[in-house]
Amino acid sequence: MFNKRIRIKEVLGTEPQQQEITVMGWVRTFRNNQFVALNDGSTNNNLQVVLTLGEFDEALLKRITTSASLKVTGILVPSLGKGQKVDLKATSVEILGDCDAEKYPLQPKKHSLEFLREIAHLRFRTNTFGAVFRVRHALAFAIHKFFNDKGFVYLHTPIITASDAEGAGEMFRVTTLPLEGAPTTEEGKIDFSQDFFGRSTNLTVSGQLEGELGATAFGEIYTFGPTFRAENSNTARHLAEFWMIEPEMAFYDIEDNANLAEEFIQYLIRYVMEHNADDLAFLNQRLLDEEKQKPQAERSELDLLQKLQFVVDNQFERITYTEAIDILLQSSHYKKKKFQYDVKWGIDMQSEHERYLVEKHFKKPVIVTNYPKDIKSFYMRLNEDGKTVAAMDILAPGIGEIVGGSQREERYDVLTSRMEEMGVPADELWWYLDTRRYGTVPHAGFGLGFERMVQFVTGMGNIRDVIAFPRTPKNAEF
Amino acid sequence: MFNKRIRIKEVLGTEPQQQEITVMGWVRTFRNNQFVALNDGSTNNNLQVVLTLGEFDEALLKRITTSASLKVTGILVPSLGKGQKVDLKATSVEILGDCDAEKYPLQPKKHSLEFLREIAHLRFRTNTFGAVFRVRHALAFAIHKFFNDKGFVYLHTPIITASDAEGAGEMFRVTTLPLEGAPTTEEGKIDFSQDFFGRSTNLTVSGQLEGELGATAFGEIYTFGPTFRAENSNTARHLAEFWMIEPEMAFYDIEDNANLAEEFIQYLIRYVMEHNADDLAFLNQRLLDEEKQKPQAERSELDLLQKLQFVVDNQFERITYTEAIDILLQSSHYKKKKFQYDVKWGIDMQSEHERYLVEKHFKKPVIVTNYPKDIKSFYMRLNEDGKTVAAMDILAPGIGEIVGGSQREERYDVLTSRMEEMGVPADELWWYLDTRRYGTVPHAGFGLGFERMVQFVTGMGNIRDVIAFPRTPKNAEF
Repeated sequence: MFNKRIRIKEVLGTEPQQQEITVMGWVRTFRNNQFVALNDGSTNNNLQVVLTLGEFDEALLKRITTSASLKVTGILVPSLGKGQKVDLKATSVEILGDCDAEKYPLQPKKHSLEFLREIAHLRFRTNTFGAVFRVRHALAFAIHKFFNDKGFVYLHTPIITASDAEGAGEMFRVTTLPLEGAPTTEEGKIDFSQDFFGRSTNLTVSGQLEGELGATAFGEIYTFGPTFRAENSNTARHLAEFWMIEPEMAFYDIEDNANLAEEFIQYLIRYVMEHNADDLAFLNQRLLDEEKQKPQAERSELDLLQKLQFVVDNQFERITYTEAIDILLQSSHYKKKKFQYDVKWGIDMQSEHERYLVEKHFKKPVIVTNYPKDIKSFYMRLNEDGKTVAAMDILAPGIGEIVGGSQREERYDVLTSRMEEMGVPADELWWYLDTRRYGTVPHAGFGLGFERMVQFVTGMGNIRDVIAFPRTPKNAEF
Repeated sequence: MFNKRIRIKEVLGTEPQQQEITVMGWVRTFRNNQFVALNDGSTNNNLQVVLTLGEFDEALLKRITTSASLKVTGILVPSLGKGQKVDLKATSVEILGDCDAEKYPLQPKKHSLEFLREIAHLRFRTNTFGAVFRVRHALAFAIHKFFNDKGFVYLHTPIITASDAEGAGEMFRVTTLPLEGAPTTEEGKIDFSQDFFGRSTNLTVSGQLEGELGATAFGEIYTFGPTFRAENSNTARHLAEFWMIEPEMAFYDIEDNANLAEEFIQYLIRYVMEHNADDLAFLNQRLLDEEKQKPQAERSELDLLQKLQFVVDNQFERITYTEAIDILLQSSHYKKKKFQYDVKWGIDMQSEHERYLVEKHFKKPVIVTNYPKDIKSFYMRLNEDGKTVAAMDILAPGIGEIVGGSQREERYDVLTSRMEEMGVPADELWWYLDTRRYGTVPHAGFGLGFERMVQFVTGMGNIRDVIAFPRTPKNAEF
């Protein structure tokens, strides 16, 4: 048995009483042949290990370089330094693994996020990414806890799917057929009966339709899994592979849906504020430092911590799409022709419109409901007016759309005629329609893009910096 | 706002005090135009709704058919029936959705599991699958709770990967190239530079290698995500898409690894026994009924609940591979030539060998360590003997291998020479080798097949019955 270490996060919260402990971790810095700042990834705060001068071999001291890994046993004593409560006075130091400081790509200086993306396998070892991925973990756990506490069932909807009816975006093909000389039918088409699944299959763009199958049995379910878009979008907001949370609830209308989504987002933020205060403080300071580079006018009014506090303390604004368009049309921004894209009832709002509503007009998260049916999906419930559907988007400051959802069309006849109108093949979705044939219920659901939520809470500007190994056009490294 | 219902699970645990409540759910049965057994998926136990004769329209009563959905408001009263504490005396009944009992595929009788697989979109509505998927949920939550409580970081390793170095199995190709006339290079090969990621990509078979990158920064991480095998195995034990949990821990040796795995499995079982007692009782009875069909000699010695209790109460047996082979060689089973496959040191044990060890010899879970290096992966740590590696498999009664893991080879030179021996391309894994170049640490990890664990806890014999929508050769329905 090797592992009798205590985590540094725990050590730093311990009263020093001359107790002997063992820690293991990686060297962040080594000063004066005496002071090792040791980190084990449990927190950004390092443990100061003190090596009494003359008590350790020169040969050993030379091997204590940045990112070398150590096993240190010692006595926990009150710290001599500022900002920490305890020091570890080393009685034995073992080098577990050397690190050639000259070759090590992470030098003890500030690296650009772009450079760190190229060494994504090592960037977890920096303070920024340590904080980001601990917050990501906390958010993931909070998501499961929120739904588990409410009695939702976690459903794993399929990743490989033969259905391409949802139309949420371009799909990746999944196949075992050879690209060179794939078998063909007599008519000269690809013979998918010879493919692994006996038909053409893709990576899922959403678990919603299958989620509805679960909701109409368990009442309330949620998914939390990877989803995919084969879109050639090389932006700071898009990934080809990302994680999504999709709760789906029987017996919910659009208002219940909005209430749940708001409570959910506030819960997640509150959870991280309680459990990751250190990491948020670090990320807050990081952003403040970054903002200092910007001209005064471009700096945010609220810092990250203030923004998060504001979101948990205030109700989200709720408006209809029609009201949103009116606000845009009446804005001085519109009158001064500052929008690049036109504004009129019926448009699919552009990012600039959403940002105006959220960042300039309301200055808080906004829930927009009842969109024109022509810009939304077939499964959204048609409103009485015959023109709009019970859709719901949540727009967040600095991020844009973070949640998209709707009450679902539970009426068999309305649903099938909408499918016909929109060219969605009913025969492929026989199983989906069965839920409307056999004891249909009013129900609703939404999707939260997990990485967008991590961005919102960490303040990271590029979505590639909140997922471990981003998948983007021309990039599948690691 | 529509949803002011109380869940039936909660109602059934409430003291009846004439309080007015609203419930919503699906009709399981309707007897004597008076008694509705209502189910909302929160539990297999139905709420008895009592309709006073003469108080409701005939037309409404006719619509109360199996699987019709209802909204019922009523008064909670002590039950007149046996086996339940409360009845709901209905004051108003609203039909939310009709169900044509003649057409509804789930008739109120016992259906075969094979038939239910064909209507996997509706099978959640049966008692068996209600219990299975609530247990699956509880296991998933317990997994996150176990690791979160221990300070592990949940890492989402990539699903789409360019790496095929792990060699865990056949892979699915992920591509946006057309199958008809994919672009070729001047040499006539497929031009993957034109594919979405600019290279050939597949679905992951394991997140382990990326998990090690996380462990060597955060100390301890785990993954919980989908993994894929493009193997044409049409058995009750194989899925093309399944979920796996892969913890990876810095500063752990093989013994620490085994300790964690054992604690983990016992924790999961204990969690479900505490939180899903009703569901387990149902599944236990289901298995007992099934066993009655078998001849006495083939029945299990322990029922499901006894088996689970036994596993949490007893330490797992720990033996080396060499000891395992000796036990097999000395068995009367071997001497009577009852094994189909040969037994000698060096073999990759077959299912029949593993079952003998677990089910006949030890009658409990067994942790087998130190396998011959030639039958294991390149990343497993070479033992002093030069012949075996610090691998670890956990074999469970009735399931076989449920966990596979190892201490990882942390020594750069040993690792690279093993890679060369086994033909693993070092240049593709430059990022993996970096962890051994820069502050390498002893570390270990394992993988738990989630569906196998769900099978073990629910007693379901076919792996297709513990995942919502199984993906198997020639089958990607729903």
